[in-house]
Amino acid sequence: MAFTKMVESSRLFMGKLSHGDDLLEEITKVCQNENIKLGSVEALGAVQRARLGFYNQKTHEYQFVSLDQALEITGLVGNISVKDGNPIVHAHITLADETGKVYGGHLASGTVVFACEFILEAFDGPPFERGFDEETGLPLWKM
Amino acid sequence: MAFTKMVESSRLFMGKLSHGDDLLEEITKVCQNENIKLGSVEALGAVQRARLGFYNQKTHEYQFVSLDQALEITGLVGNISVKDGNPIVHAHITLADETGKVYGGHLASGTVVFACEFILEAFDGPPFERGFDEETGLPLWKM
Amino acid sequence: MAFTKMVESSRLFMGKLSHGDDLLEEITKVCQNENIKLGSVEALGAVQRARLGFYNQKTHEYQFVSLDQALEITGLVGNISVKDGNPIVHAHITLADETGKVYGGHLASGTVVFACEFILEAFDGPPFERGFDEETGLPLWKM
Repeated sequence: MAFTKMVESSRLFMGKLSHGDDLLEEITKVCQNENIKLGSVEALGAVQRARLGFYNQKTHEYQFVSLDQALEITGLVGNISVKDGNPIVHAHITLADETGKVYGGHLASGTVVFACEFILEAFDGPPFERGFDEETGLPLWKM
Repeated sequence: MAFTKMVESSRLFMGKLSHGDDLLEEITKVCQNENIKLGSVEALGAVQRARLGFYNQKTHEYQFVSLDQALEITGLVGNISVKDGNPIVHAHITLADETGKVYGGHLASGTVVFACEFILEAFDGPPFERGFDEETGLPLWKM
Repeated sequence: MAFTKMVESSRLFMGKLSHGDDLLEEITKVCQNENIKLGSVEALGAVQRARLGFYNQKTHEYQFVSLDQALEITGLVGNISVKDGNPIVHAHITLADETGKVYGGHLASGTVVFACEFILEAFDGPPFERGFDEETGLPLWKM
């Protein structure tokens, strides 16, 4: 069963991150600075290294994979909502190496920008707040 | 040659699916319930298992790959149009396993949600209807 | 540090490319014909063959991988801006083969459409112009 709420597009931002930025932390800062508590983000570009999360559905813990290599960002899709009163960016990413092989997962801190272009859309709407979900162990939206 | 039509964003929905949902069928139900016949959808999250289609360009038949394992949804991009009078969701998906390896294809029924967050945008515009395309064997838009 | 500018959604296009089209060139033509100098694009579908770029972060040169096989387009994310006065489409793509294995990279000319459906959004806003960036060697936005 789907739980949905209507939202409205309010502001649209296009921009780039700086060489050496932490990808997740910098997108989060944009949301804090612009007071975006609801929205979506997409990006492309390249990273110097990446750190990817995989949620273990049995142990209910994140496992992390670190890729210490240059990679293209082949896709990044994310949403912005609220956890403990602050904007939280939840994004997943895919990355390609020089042979075209693709890696992916939950975007974690420790993913360092080589160059990155993003589009961020802020929404107006009812609050989307993350709280502990017993069934999955994840901080899902309370709806 | 590109065939394009102008459309307009009319309604924007943000939401989540339930644990155990069939990903494709549940997104389709949202479109039916909200009377969305044109639009786009994106999602991230994780699945308990996945079923992916690959269209054989020579035999003009879909082949399917079933992945009976926990996977992160690293990207889902889809559109909504009409086939035989009903909304149809056409979506492609990428998924990552615990090593970061990525799988992907045409999203087929049989892909079961662990947790899934989506953004769905409904468009107003001229009808986009799918009908048999002889060259590809696919139900493409008649334009 | 992020550099951002506010833009506004002005026009939204939905459409398809023709069998045999060069994917990158044809999306670029749509932008030229519709006078789109700022925006975003997403797509799904399939290709007959693909050519992917990987930017070597040490030598500052693109390397290319050619895949001479049928592949599903599992994701395409791109933006439109201006270089030397003309619209330029910067897109990254992921593609899946019949086993579900995924390839990806910078979308280069030489990627040939089997079938492709896209959504293109034009923005109004300040100019986003690409120019040589010394640190990365890439044509990044001057901001």
